[in-house]
Amino acid sequence: MDSVARLSLNQITTERASLVETVDACARHGVPYVALWRHKLAETGVDRAARMVRDAGLRVSSLCRGGMFPAPTPAERAARIDDNRRAVDDAAVLGAEVLILVCGPAADRDIDAARGMVADGIAALVPYAAERRVRLGIEPLHPAFAAERSCITTLREARALATKFDPATVGIVADVYHIWWDPALYREIARAAGRFMGFHVSDWLVPSRDVLMSRGMMGDGVIELQRIRTAVQDAGYAGPIEVEIFNDAVWSTPLDTLLPLVKERYLACV
Amino acid sequence: MDSVARLSLNQITTERASLVETVDACARHGVPYVALWRHKLAETGVDRAARMVRDAGLRVSSLCRGGMFPAPTPAERAARIDDNRRAVDDAAVLGAEVLILVCGPAADRDIDAARGMVADGIAALVPYAAERRVRLGIEPLHPAFAAERSCITTLREARALATKFDPATVGIVADVYHIWWDPALYREIARAAGRFMGFHVSDWLVPSRDVLMSRGMMGDGVIELQRIRTAVQDAGYAGPIEVEIFNDAVWSTPLDTLLPLVKERYLACV
Repeated sequence: MDSVARLSLNQITTERASLVETVDACARHGVPYVALWRHKLAETGVDRAARMVRDAGLRVSSLCRGGMFPAPTPAERAARIDDNRRAVDDAAVLGAEVLILVCGPAADRDIDAARGMVADGIAALVPYAAERRVRLGIEPLHPAFAAERSCITTLREARALATKFDPATVGIVADVYHIWWDPALYREIARAAGRFMGFHVSDWLVPSRDVLMSRGMMGDGVIELQRIRTAVQDAGYAGPIEVEIFNDAVWSTPLDTLLPLVKERYLACV
Repeated sequence: MDSVARLSLNQITTERASLVETVDACARHGVPYVALWRHKLAETGVDRAARMVRDAGLRVSSLCRGGMFPAPTPAERAARIDDNRRAVDDAAVLGAEVLILVCGPAADRDIDAARGMVADGIAALVPYAAERRVRLGIEPLHPAFAAERSCITTLREARALATKFDPATVGIVADVYHIWWDPALYREIARAAGRFMGFHVSDWLVPSRDVLMSRGMMGDGVIELQRIRTAVQDAGYAGPIEVEIFNDAVWSTPLDTLLPLVKERYLACV
């Protein structure tokens, strides 16, 4: 890794900045990609956001997020699909490389039923996404989020889901924070060859208690970043690499301090 | 489940009480088993503790904990084995059904090497344990603890480890809090049939951020307790069921309020 040609700044890493501030900072610091979040698009509307990104010479590596499929009733599940269609529309306008699917937790104690609802939800979304040439990336989340964000927790499960669908439309997004602990990690990355649509980096800090907000800057934790990056690359992924860090100290760092650090750590550690 | 004949109170659930207070409370409330922690044995010494438990008419379901095998140097790893031998000695004196192995995290970023050190550590400990008729139970911990407590995070991995050894000496301990999220849960429980040496219950609360201290009372969270208990039972486990709850509110509850609640929830939810 001797250039930042694949580097993307995931907007959550600059959660306290506005969309325009993040886009300007990426342009100023030569970061070629940005990953956007839907709650931030509301600041300007998607059309203005798309223009702003294009005018700054950036590309959109992903839109976060679709998903959240499980719900207690058929009507509520249908409403989730509708919301996912709006996310697909936004991803199409932005020219995002992939729409991230955070699949959602069970609505009750039945995690198996929730997994079925996720499969059904993706099936319902695929034709709409395929027509608009928007790719859907299933992101397995760390098992610590199984009760609140995603019943899909491993690469193996994400692959089993993805292989039900056309690889042109449905793939997998690998985030080191979510998958680094997996004893089957390298075997599963190899098995998912050709299916990767995104790769996210951060680090796992020690000690860590707050699994949501304890993500660290690359190099500050225990994840074997270069080994995982190489494995994902060997599995055929050559697209953007997003830096996605939920961490209060990172969020409090001025962008003109943060972005040089992100680039430096990306070059040294990823 | 219509009796508390298999119920064990894991001492960590009453972390603020002394050993004698916990033992007395179990006897007073008809809880037949107790699981002890080594840091609590220091209060009385192991011989007095064993006598106290026996005099109260209780049995020791497990001793927590051995393990923590990975370390940076051969000398440090040998010191860990020595410490594990002392834990085996304690378990023998207490007549504990099993010595729990919390296997330990990597000493650096190399989790694969740590897994090898765990296998080597158990191999070094087995003859000593077998001679003393102390059983060793590998407890896979939730992946959220992979960086600080155990590089062994799934039932599948625990089984792969355990099957290297005589099933009379090395088995698996299943704790619902650590394994409930696993997409392979029921398949793996069935595959580990005959290998279970312990079963621990609590619940996964929503919302949860502090994965160490957010364990809940059975019934207060999202875990399918009865389904998992039935599966472990169908896999041949008929031994004690430990209630093991790390939670500040639980720790602040007077024992004569807590133990009736533990029994009630055990009967209703497990």
